[in-house]
Amino acid sequence: MLIMSTPMRSETIRVIGIDPGFDRMGIAIIERSKEKKEKLLWSACVESSRTLSFEDRLVVLANEFERVLQEYVPSILSIEKIFFTKNQRTGIAVAEARGMLRYLARKHTLSIMEYTPQEIKQSVTGYGNADKKQVAHMVSLLLTLPPARRHDDEYDAIAAGLTALGHLR
Amino acid sequence: MLIMSTPMRSETIRVIGIDPGFDRMGIAIIERSKEKKEKLLWSACVESSRTLSFEDRLVVLANEFERVLQEYVPSILSIEKIFFTKNQRTGIAVAEARGMLRYLARKHTLSIMEYTPQEIKQSVTGYGNADKKQVAHMVSLLLTLPPARRHDDEYDAIAAGLTALGHLR
Repeated sequence: MLIMSTPMRSETIRVIGIDPGFDRMGIAIIERSKEKKEKLLWSACVESSRTLSFEDRLVVLANEFERVLQEYVPSILSIEKIFFTKNQRTGIAVAEARGMLRYLARKHTLSIMEYTPQEIKQSVTGYGNADKKQVAHMVSLLLTLPPARRHDDEYDAIAAGLTALGHLR
Repeated sequence: MLIMSTPMRSETIRVIGIDPGFDRMGIAIIERSKEKKEKLLWSACVESSRTLSFEDRLVVLANEFERVLQEYVPSILSIEKIFFTKNQRTGIAVAEARGMLRYLARKHTLSIMEYTPQEIKQSVTGYGNADKKQVAHMVSLLLTLPPARRHDDEYDAIAAGLTALGHLR
């Protein structure tokens, strides 16, 4: 975790939350206003086509990530830490995508914060073993989101962003 | 493995070989002439300082990688595949660096070839379980290298490059 310049408490802060993935990447932009109000500016679940080569899929994810960085100019990246459990092959692919994203974020001078899935669940729901439904429910409550069909990875990205803002209080 | 345009047999081909790493990254540029003669143009072992943050270390490796791509303009990246054995934490860090390198290579329109350590040893020494000393010895013989102090990672990068050229014959 690296914070280059700790944002002042009275500043507006913009965070990009990422649920790193290779087939799907959750991505969210959250802003906290001077009045400490948090707002979701944009979120999506970016998919990379299985018909492309691994490298071309990385380029698809990178291009979308850089486009969002340029459009919303967040100052902090909040990204989920990964652990390998069963499928090591999938784990390596996700790690490769994650390294690329961390590199790109740093290249764009963002500060980077990392949290384990448990830390994110704990921060958003108060319970480290919350399920995906509980995370989605609490995220929607916290940001008073209008009902919308969002992918789990999108909620996880929003939750990662909220976690970083919570740690900056 | 992706070959965008198979090089003609009579062309000069330039390969960048990489032994992916995080603390140290072996990197080599090998050229095969029209006369099928292989030559080492340049090699190095790039280290990233432990005093830097993870992301800043990625940027150090990326900057050197891109500098070499721009100076030597190789058309093919040959990179070692990774497997995790004991230290999963180190494995994730190497995978993150490796993903970044694959992304950058593709962005620079290189074709990408991957080989397991066994395939590289087999290709260079004729024996898939060769040790580092045998790899260094055979690499030096194949390229008639003048004696020099080279890091193991540098020899591994040269061997990765030679393997790709061998598969293009």
